[in-house]
Amino acid sequence: MDVESKATNTVWHCSQVTREKRGALLDQRGCTIWLTGLPSSGKSTTAFALECHLIKLGFLAYVLDGDNVRHGLNKDLGFSAREREENIRRVAEVAKLFADAGLIVITSFISPYRKERDFARRIHMDAGLDFAEIFVDTPLTVCETRDPKGHYAKARRGELKGFTGIDDPYEPPLSPELVIDTAQYSPEAIVEQIIDFLVSEGQLPLSVRLLTQSVGRAR
Amino acid sequence: MDVESKATNTVWHCSQVTREKRGALLDQRGCTIWLTGLPSSGKSTTAFALECHLIKLGFLAYVLDGDNVRHGLNKDLGFSAREREENIRRVAEVAKLFADAGLIVITSFISPYRKERDFARRIHMDAGLDFAEIFVDTPLTVCETRDPKGHYAKARRGELKGFTGIDDPYEPPLSPELVIDTAQYSPEAIVEQIIDFLVSEGQLPLSVRLLTQSVGRAR
Repeated sequence: MDVESKATNTVWHCSQVTREKRGALLDQRGCTIWLTGLPSSGKSTTAFALECHLIKLGFLAYVLDGDNVRHGLNKDLGFSAREREENIRRVAEVAKLFADAGLIVITSFISPYRKERDFARRIHMDAGLDFAEIFVDTPLTVCETRDPKGHYAKARRGELKGFTGIDDPYEPPLSPELVIDTAQYSPEAIVEQIIDFLVSEGQLPLSVRLLTQSVGRAR
Repeated sequence: MDVESKATNTVWHCSQVTREKRGALLDQRGCTIWLTGLPSSGKSTTAFALECHLIKLGFLAYVLDGDNVRHGLNKDLGFSAREREENIRRVAEVAKLFADAGLIVITSFISPYRKERDFARRIHMDAGLDFAEIFVDTPLTVCETRDPKGHYAKARRGELKGFTGIDDPYEPPLSPELVIDTAQYSPEAIVEQIIDFLVSEGQLPLSVRLLTQSVGRAR
Protein backbone atom coordinates (compact mmCIF):
# COMPACT_ATOMS: atom_id res chain seq x y z
CA MET A 1 0.00 0.00 0.00
CA ASP A 2 1.21 3.46 -0.80
CA VAL A 3 0.78 5.00 2.62
CA GLU A 4 2.47 8.24 1.70
CA SER A 5 0.14 9.17 -1.13
CA LYS A 6 -2.83 8.16 1.03
CA ALA A 7 -1.66 10.47 3.79
CA THR A 8 -1.14 13.35 1.39
CA ASN A 9 -4.80 13.12 0.48
CA THR A 10 -5.94 13.06 4.05
CA VAL A 11 -6.67 16.29 5.83
CA TRP A 12 -6.67 15.90 9.56
CA HIS A 13 -5.11 17.68 12.44
CA CYS A 14 -4.75 15.95 15.72
CA SER A 15 -3.81 17.72 18.87
CA GLN A 16 -4.00 16.33 22.36
CA VAL A 17 -6.85 13.99 23.25
CA THR A 18 -8.81 15.77 25.96
CA ARG A 19 -10.99 14.11 28.58
CA GLU A 20 -13.94 15.83 26.96
CA LYS A 21 -13.23 14.03 23.69
CA ARG A 22 -13.03 10.69 25.47
CA GLY A 23 -16.18 11.50 27.40
CA ALA A 24 -18.07 12.36 24.22
CA LEU A 25 -16.96 9.12 22.59
CA LEU A 26 -18.27 6.97 25.42
CA ASP A 27 -21.04 9.26 26.72
CA GLN A 28 -19.59 8.82 30.19
CA ARG A 29 -16.99 10.44 32.42
CA GLY A 30 -14.07 8.31 33.52
CA CYS A 31 -13.88 7.72 37.26
CA THR A 32 -12.83 5.27 39.92
CA ILE A 33 -15.38 3.48 42.09
CA TRP A 34 -13.39 2.26 45.07
CA LEU A 35 -15.16 -0.54 46.93
CA THR A 36 -13.91 -1.25 50.44
CA GLY A 37 -15.16 -3.65 53.10
CA LEU A 38 -14.48 -6.73 55.16
CA PRO A 39 -13.65 -10.08 53.59
CA SER A 40 -16.84 -11.69 52.22
CA SER A 41 -18.72 -8.40 52.53
CA GLY A 42 -19.84 -8.65 48.91
CA LYS A 43 -17.35 -6.39 47.13
CA SER A 44 -16.69 -8.73 44.21
CA THR A 45 -20.36 -9.60 43.72
CA THR A 46 -21.16 -5.89 43.68
CA ALA A 47 -18.24 -5.04 41.40
CA PHE A 48 -19.09 -7.62 38.74
CA ALA A 49 -22.82 -6.95 38.87
CA LEU A 50 -22.12 -3.25 38.39
CA GLU A 51 -19.64 -3.87 35.56
CA CYS A 52 -22.03 -6.19 33.79
CA HIS A 53 -24.97 -3.84 34.11
CA LEU A 54 -22.97 -0.85 32.87
CA ILE A 55 -21.70 -2.77 29.84
CA LYS A 56 -25.24 -3.92 29.14
CA LEU A 57 -26.33 -0.30 29.18
CA GLY A 58 -23.57 0.57 26.73
CA PHE A 59 -21.00 2.06 29.09
CA LEU A 60 -17.41 0.95 29.46
CA ALA A 61 -16.52 -0.38 32.90
CA TYR A 62 -13.75 -2.64 34.15
CA VAL A 63 -13.12 -4.41 37.44
CA LEU A 64 -9.70 -4.51 39.06
CA ASP A 65 -9.58 -7.18 41.74
CA GLY A 66 -7.26 -9.70 43.34
CA ASP A 67 -7.73 -12.11 40.47
CA ASN A 68 -6.47 -9.94 37.65
CA VAL A 69 -3.99 -7.90 39.70
CA ARG A 70 -2.42 -10.38 42.11
CA HIS A 71 -1.73 -12.88 39.32
CA GLY A 72 -0.15 -10.32 37.03
CA LEU A 73 1.02 -6.84 37.92
CA ASN A 74 1.41 -7.61 41.62
CA LYS A 75 2.49 -11.20 41.56
CA ASP A 76 5.86 -10.16 42.94
CA LEU A 77 4.10 -9.07 46.15
CA GLY A 78 3.35 -11.21 49.18
CA PHE A 79 1.13 -10.40 52.13
CA SER A 80 3.38 -8.58 54.57
CA ALA A 81 2.12 -5.19 55.77
CA ARG A 82 4.54 -3.43 53.41
CA GLU A 83 3.57 -5.58 50.45
CA ARG A 84 -0.15 -5.19 51.10
CA GLU A 85 0.36 -1.45 51.13
CA GLU A 86 2.32 -1.60 47.85
CA ASN A 87 -0.45 -3.78 46.40
CA ILE A 88 -3.02 -1.09 47.09
CA ARG A 89 -0.70 1.71 45.96
CA ARG A 90 -0.29 0.08 42.54
CA VAL A 91 -4.02 -0.63 42.25
CA ALA A 92 -4.71 3.04 42.96
CA GLU A 93 -2.22 4.13 40.28
CA VAL A 94 -3.62 1.71 37.70
CA ALA A 95 -7.19 2.76 38.52
CA LYS A 96 -6.12 6.34 37.91
CA LEU A 97 -4.79 5.41 34.45
CA PHE A 98 -8.07 3.66 33.60
CA ALA A 99 -10.14 6.63 34.80
CA ASP A 100 -7.89 8.92 32.75
CA ALA A 101 -8.54 6.71 29.73
CA GLY A 102 -12.26 7.36 30.20
CA LEU A 103 -13.40 4.14 31.85
CA ILE A 104 -15.52 3.61 34.90
CA VAL A 105 -13.11 1.44 36.83
CA ILE A 106 -14.34 -0.51 39.83
CA THR A 107 -11.76 -1.68 42.35
CA SER A 108 -12.61 -4.58 44.63
CA PHE A 109 -10.10 -4.86 47.46
CA ILE A 110 -10.53 -5.03 51.24
CA SER A 111 -8.23 -1.97 51.47
CA PRO A 112 -8.68 -1.87 55.26
CA TYR A 113 -6.65 1.25 56.04
CA ARG A 114 -7.82 4.83 55.70
CA LYS A 115 -4.30 5.93 54.81
CA GLU A 116 -4.20 3.83 51.64
CA ARG A 117 -7.72 4.75 50.55
CA ASP A 118 -6.92 8.41 51.16
CA PHE A 119 -3.83 8.02 48.99
CA ALA A 120 -5.98 6.60 46.18
CA ARG A 121 -8.40 9.50 46.52
CA ARG A 122 -5.63 12.09 46.62
CA ILE A 123 -3.86 10.98 43.43
CA HIS A 124 -7.20 11.09 41.60
CA MET A 125 -8.05 14.54 42.95
CA ASP A 126 -4.59 15.83 42.04
CA ALA A 127 -5.16 14.68 38.47
CA GLY A 128 -8.65 16.19 38.32
CA LEU A 129 -10.27 12.76 38.18
CA ASP A 130 -13.44 11.66 39.97
CA PHE A 131 -13.14 9.17 42.78
CA ALA A 132 -15.92 7.61 44.86
CA GLU A 133 -15.32 5.52 47.94
CA ILE A 134 -18.11 3.01 48.45
CA PHE A 135 -18.25 1.34 51.82
CA VAL A 136 -19.62 -2.20 51.55
CA ASP A 137 -20.92 -2.10 55.10
CA THR A 138 -22.00 -5.69 55.64
CA PRO A 139 -21.90 -6.60 59.34
CA LEU A 140 -19.03 -8.82 60.47
CA THR A 141 -21.47 -11.48 61.69
CA VAL A 142 -22.97 -11.75 58.20
CA CYS A 143 -19.56 -11.85 56.49
CA GLU A 144 -18.47 -14.55 58.92
CA THR A 145 -21.54 -16.66 58.19
CA ARG A 146 -20.86 -16.49 54.44
CA ASP A 147 -17.14 -17.35 54.68
CA PRO A 148 -17.00 -19.24 51.33
CA LYS A 149 -13.31 -20.12 51.66
CA GLY A 150 -13.39 -20.89 55.39
CA HIS A 151 -10.96 -18.04 56.10
CA TYR A 152 -12.91 -16.59 59.02
CA ALA A 153 -13.09 -20.00 60.67
CA LYS A 154 -9.35 -20.48 60.22
CA ALA A 155 -8.66 -17.00 61.58
CA ARG A 156 -10.88 -17.68 64.63
CA ARG A 157 -8.90 -20.86 65.29
CA GLY A 158 -5.70 -18.84 65.04
CA GLU A 159 -4.54 -20.71 61.95
CA LEU A 160 -4.63 -17.60 59.78
CA LYS A 161 -2.81 -14.58 61.16
CA GLY A 162 -3.47 -10.94 60.36
CA PHE A 163 -6.96 -11.56 58.99
CA THR A 164 -8.93 -8.35 58.54
CA GLY A 165 -11.88 -8.14 60.92
CA ILE A 166 -10.53 -10.79 63.30
CA ASP A 167 -6.97 -10.01 64.35
CA ASP A 168 -6.21 -7.16 61.97
CA PRO A 169 -8.19 -3.92 62.04
CA TYR A 170 -10.63 -2.70 59.43
CA GLU A 171 -10.89 1.08 59.51
CA PRO A 172 -14.36 2.06 58.24
CA PRO A 173 -14.45 5.07 55.90
CA LEU A 174 -15.23 8.33 57.70
CA SER A 175 -17.03 10.00 54.81
CA PRO A 176 -17.58 7.60 51.94
CA GLU A 177 -19.57 8.77 48.93
CA LEU A 178 -21.93 5.82 49.38
CA VAL A 179 -22.64 3.12 51.94
CA ILE A 180 -24.18 -0.16 50.85
CA ASP A 181 -25.35 -3.12 52.85
CA THR A 182 -25.42 -6.46 51.06
CA ALA A 183 -27.23 -8.10 53.97
CA GLN A 184 -30.26 -5.88 53.39
CA TYR A 185 -30.29 -5.39 49.63
CA SER A 186 -29.90 -7.60 46.57
CA PRO A 187 -26.98 -7.07 44.17
CA GLU A 188 -29.49 -5.69 41.63
CA ALA A 189 -30.80 -3.14 44.11
CA ILE A 190 -27.26 -2.12 45.02
CA VAL A 191 -26.28 -1.74 41.37
CA GLU A 192 -29.26 0.56 40.81
CA GLN A 193 -28.23 2.57 43.85
CA ILE A 194 -24.68 3.00 42.50
CA ILE A 195 -25.89 3.84 38.99
CA ASP A 196 -28.22 6.45 40.44
CA PHE A 197 -25.24 7.88 42.27
CA LEU A 198 -23.17 7.94 39.05
CA VAL A 199 -25.96 9.80 37.27
CA SER A 200 -26.29 12.33 40.08
CA GLU A 201 -22.54 12.94 39.98
CA GLY A 202 -22.49 13.39 36.21
CA GLN A 203 -20.41 10.33 35.32
CA LEU A 204 -23.40 8.92 33.43
CA PRO A 205 -25.98 10.88 31.43
CA LEU A 206 -29.41 11.60 32.90
CA SER A 207 -31.04 9.44 30.22
CA VAL A 208 -29.74 6.36 32.03
CA ARG A 209 -32.48 6.73 34.62
CA LEU A 210 -34.97 5.76 31.92
CA LEU A 211 -32.83 2.99 30.58
CA THR A 212 -32.09 1.12 33.78
CA GLN A 213 -35.61 -0.27 33.54
CA SER A 214 -34.98 -1.78 30.13
CA VAL A 215 -32.55 -4.36 28.94
CA GLY A 216 -30.13 -2.26 26.94
CA ARG A 217 -29.25 1.11 25.61
CA ALA A 218 -29.88 2.04 22.01
CA ARG A 219 -26.80 3.24 20.24
CA MET B 1 -35.06 6.59 46.51
CA ASP B 2 -36.60 3.21 46.95
CA VAL B 3 -33.94 1.17 45.22
CA GLU B 4 -35.39 -2.14 46.23
CA SER B 5 -38.74 -1.64 44.60
CA LYS B 6 -37.00 -0.26 41.52
CA ALA B 7 -34.86 -3.36 41.29
CA THR B 8 -37.83 -5.63 41.74
CA ASN B 9 -39.34 -4.09 38.64
CA THR B 10 -36.19 -4.52 36.64
CA VAL B 11 -35.70 -7.69 34.72
CA TRP B 12 -32.09 -8.26 33.86
CA HIS B 13 -29.71 -11.09 34.14
CA CYS B 14 -26.05 -10.41 34.05
CA SER B 15 -23.49 -13.07 33.68
CA GLN B 16 -19.83 -12.55 32.90
CA VAL B 17 -18.82 -9.75 30.59
CA THR B 18 -17.19 -11.42 27.61
CA ARG B 19 -14.63 -9.87 25.29
CA GLU B 20 -17.24 -10.15 22.54
CA LYS B 21 -19.61 -7.90 24.52
CA ARG B 22 -16.87 -5.33 25.05
CA GLY B 23 -15.91 -5.59 21.40
CA ALA B 24 -19.48 -5.02 20.28
CA LEU B 25 -19.80 -1.98 22.52
CA LEU B 26 -16.72 -0.30 21.10
CA ASP B 27 -16.72 -1.85 17.61
CA GLN B 28 -13.09 -2.74 18.12
CA ARG B 29 -11.03 -5.57 19.58
CA GLY B 30 -8.80 -4.80 22.53
CA CYS B 31 -5.09 -5.22 21.86
CA THR B 32 -1.66 -3.94 22.73
CA ILE B 33 0.44 -2.03 20.23
CA TRP B 34 3.96 -2.26 21.59
CA LEU B 35 6.25 0.42 20.13
CA THR B 36 9.97 -0.16 20.55
CA GLY B 37 12.95 1.78 19.26
CA LEU B 38 15.96 3.90 20.09
CA PRO B 39 15.67 7.12 22.11
CA SER B 40 14.30 9.90 19.87
CA SER B 41 13.24 7.38 17.24
CA GLY B 42 9.73 8.84 17.20
CA LYS B 43 7.83 6.41 19.46
CA SER B 44 5.93 9.08 21.40
CA THR B 45 5.07 11.13 18.33
CA THR B 46 3.75 7.97 16.68
CA ALA B 47 1.88 6.84 19.80
CA PHE B 48 0.06 10.13 20.35
CA ALA B 49 -0.72 10.64 16.66
CA LEU B 50 -2.19 7.14 16.54
CA GLU B 51 -4.18 7.62 19.76
CA CYS B 52 -5.56 10.93 18.57
CA HIS B 53 -6.52 9.60 15.17
CA LEU B 54 -8.23 6.53 16.63
CA ILE B 55 -10.24 8.64 19.08
CA LYS B 56 -11.19 10.98 16.26
CA LEU B 57 -12.48 7.96 14.33
CA GLY B 58 -14.51 6.90 17.38
CA PHE B 59 -12.29 4.16 18.76
CA LEU B 60 -10.94 3.99 22.27
CA ALA B 61 -7.16 4.10 22.53
CA TYR B 62 -4.78 5.02 25.31
CA VAL B 63 -1.06 5.65 25.47
CA LEU B 64 1.11 4.29 28.25
CA ASP B 65 4.46 6.07 28.32
CA GLY B 66 7.15 7.29 30.66
CA ASP B 67 5.11 10.36 31.56
CA ASN B 68 2.04 8.65 32.96
CA VAL B 69 3.79 5.51 34.24
CA ARG B 70 7.10 6.72 35.66
CA HIS B 71 5.39 9.49 37.67
CA GLY B 72 2.76 7.20 39.13
CA LEU B 73 2.74 3.42 39.13
CA ASN B 74 6.50 3.11 38.70
CA LYS B 75 7.74 6.11 40.61
CA ASP B 76 9.34 3.75 43.13
CA LEU B 77 11.67 2.53 40.38
CA GLY B 78 15.03 3.99 39.39
CA PHE B 79 17.14 3.23 36.35
CA SER B 80 19.26 0.25 37.36
CA ALA B 81 19.10 -2.77 35.06
CA ARG B 82 16.80 -4.56 37.50
CA GLU B 83 14.51 -1.56 37.89
CA ARG B 84 14.33 -0.95 34.17
CA GLU B 85 13.30 -4.54 33.73
CA GLU B 86 10.65 -4.23 36.45
CA ASN B 87 9.45 -1.01 34.79
CA ILE B 88 8.79 -2.86 31.55
CA ARG B 89 7.29 -5.87 33.33
CA ARG B 90 4.69 -3.67 35.01
CA VAL B 91 3.95 -1.79 31.78
CA ALA B 92 3.36 -5.14 30.06
CA GLU B 93 0.97 -6.24 32.81
CA VAL B 94 -0.95 -2.96 32.78
CA ALA B 95 -1.16 -3.02 28.98
CA LYS B 96 -2.64 -6.50 29.27
CA LEU B 97 -5.34 -5.21 31.64
CA PHE B 98 -6.18 -2.38 29.23
CA ALA B 99 -6.37 -4.77 26.28
CA ASP B 100 -8.57 -7.08 28.35
CA ALA B 101 -10.83 -4.10 29.08
CA GLY B 102 -11.29 -3.66 25.32
CA LEU B 103 -8.96 -0.75 24.60
CA ILE B 104 -6.33 -0.36 21.95
CA VAL B 105 -3.42 0.43 24.22
CA ILE B 106 -0.25 1.86 22.75
CA THR B 107 2.94 1.54 24.78
CA SER B 108 5.80 3.90 24.10
CA PHE B 109 9.00 2.71 25.76
CA ILE B 110 12.51 2.08 24.41
CA SER B 111 12.20 -1.49 25.76
CA PRO B 112 15.61 -2.39 24.32
CA TYR B 113 15.76 -6.06 25.24
CA ARG B 114 14.13 -8.92 23.37
CA LYS B 115 13.60 -10.78 26.63
CA GLU B 116 11.29 -8.12 28.07
CA ARG B 117 9.35 -7.63 24.84
CA ASP B 118 8.96 -11.40 24.54
CA PHE B 119 7.61 -11.45 28.08
CA ALA B 120 5.03 -8.80 27.16
CA ARG B 121 4.02 -10.80 24.12
CA ARG B 122 3.81 -14.07 26.04
CA ILE B 123 1.50 -12.82 28.79
CA HIS B 124 -0.84 -11.45 26.13
CA MET B 125 -0.80 -14.68 24.15
CA ASP B 126 -1.43 -16.71 27.31
CA ALA B 127 -4.50 -14.59 28.01
CA GLY B 128 -5.76 -14.88 24.42
CA LEU B 129 -5.11 -11.19 23.76
CA ASP B 130 -3.70 -9.64 20.61
CA PHE B 131 -0.25 -8.13 20.75
CA ALA B 132 1.66 -6.35 18.00
CA GLU B 133 5.29 -5.34 18.24
CA ILE B 134 6.03 -2.31 16.12
CA PHE B 135 9.66 -1.54 15.50
CA VAL B 136 10.25 2.20 15.15
CA ASP B 137 13.29 1.65 12.99
CA THR B 138 14.70 5.15 12.71
CA PRO B 139 18.46 5.06 12.05
CA LEU B 140 20.71 5.95 14.97
CA THR B 141 22.23 8.84 13.02
CA VAL B 142 18.77 10.39 12.59
CA CYS B 143 17.83 9.86 16.25
CA GLU B 144 21.12 11.43 17.28
CA THR B 145 20.54 14.48 15.11
CA ARG B 146 17.12 15.04 16.71
CA ASP B 147 18.27 14.61 20.33
CA PRO B 148 15.77 17.13 21.81
CA LYS B 149 17.03 16.73 25.37
CA GLY B 150 20.72 16.55 24.50
CA HIS B 151 20.95 13.01 25.89
CA TYR B 152 22.87 11.57 22.96
CA ALA B 153 25.44 14.35 23.18
CA LYS B 154 25.86 13.74 26.89
CA ALA B 155 26.18 9.99 26.35
CA ARG B 156 28.81 10.56 23.63
CA ARG B 157 30.76 12.72 26.08
CA GLY B 158 30.50 9.93 28.64
CA GLU B 159 28.41 12.05 31.01
CA LEU B 160 25.41 9.75 30.73
CA LYS B 161 26.09 6.06 31.34
CA GLY B 162 24.10 3.12 30.05
CA PHE B 163 22.39 5.10 27.31
CA THR B 164 20.62 2.87 24.80
CA GLY B 165 22.25 3.01 21.37
CA ILE B 166 25.52 4.44 22.66
CA ASP B 167 26.91 2.37 25.51
CA ASP B 168 23.95 0.09 26.16
CA PRO B 169 22.67 -2.28 23.49
CA TYR B 170 19.39 -2.03 21.61
CA GLU B 171 18.26 -5.42 20.42
CA PRO B 172 16.15 -4.97 17.27
CA PRO B 173 13.02 -7.14 17.06
CA LEU B 174 13.56 -10.34 15.08
CA SER B 175 10.03 -10.63 13.75
CA PRO B 176 7.97 -7.54 14.57
CA GLU B 177 4.44 -7.28 13.22
CA LEU B 178 5.33 -3.95 11.63
CA VAL B 179 8.43 -1.86 10.94
CA ILE B 180 8.13 1.88 10.58
CA ASP B 181 10.68 4.49 9.69
CA THR B 182 10.03 8.01 10.91
CA ALA B 183 12.91 9.36 8.84
CA GLN B 184 11.12 8.39 5.64
CA TYR B 185 7.45 8.87 6.48
CA SER B 186 5.37 11.53 8.18
CA PRO B 187 3.49 10.74 11.42
CA GLU B 188 0.25 10.85 9.40
CA ALA B 189 1.52 8.29 6.90
CA ILE B 190 2.71 6.05 9.72
CA VAL B 191 -0.63 6.30 11.50
CA GLU B 192 -2.41 5.24 8.32
CA GLN B 193 0.00 2.33 7.99
CA ILE B 194 -0.74 1.17 11.55
CA ILE B 195 -4.50 1.62 11.15
CA ASP B 196 -4.38 -0.42 7.96
CA PHE B 197 -2.56 -3.09 9.91
CA LEU B 198 -5.20 -3.01 12.69
CA VAL B 199 -7.94 -3.42 10.10
CA SER B 200 -6.18 -6.32 8.43
CA GLU B 201 -5.76 -8.02 11.82
CA GLY B 202 -9.41 -7.52 12.74
CA GLN B 203 -8.92 -5.12 15.66
CA LEU B 204 -10.79 -2.45 13.71
CA PRO B 205 -13.73 -2.98 11.35
CA LEU B 206 -13.22 -2.94 7.58
CA SER B 207 -15.35 0.19 7.29
CA VAL B 208 -12.48 2.19 8.77
CA ARG B 209 -10.67 2.04 5.44
CA LEU B 210 -13.32 4.36 4.03
CA LEU B 211 -13.35 6.59 7.07
CA THR B 212 -9.65 7.29 7.34
CA GLN B 213 -10.07 9.67 4.43
CA SER B 214 -12.68 11.75 6.27
CA VAL B 215 -12.53 13.68 9.48
CA GLY B 216 -14.61 11.48 11.75
CA ARG B 217 -16.76 8.44 12.09
CA ALA B 218 -20.53 8.65 12.17
CA ARG B 219 -22.00 7.11 15.25
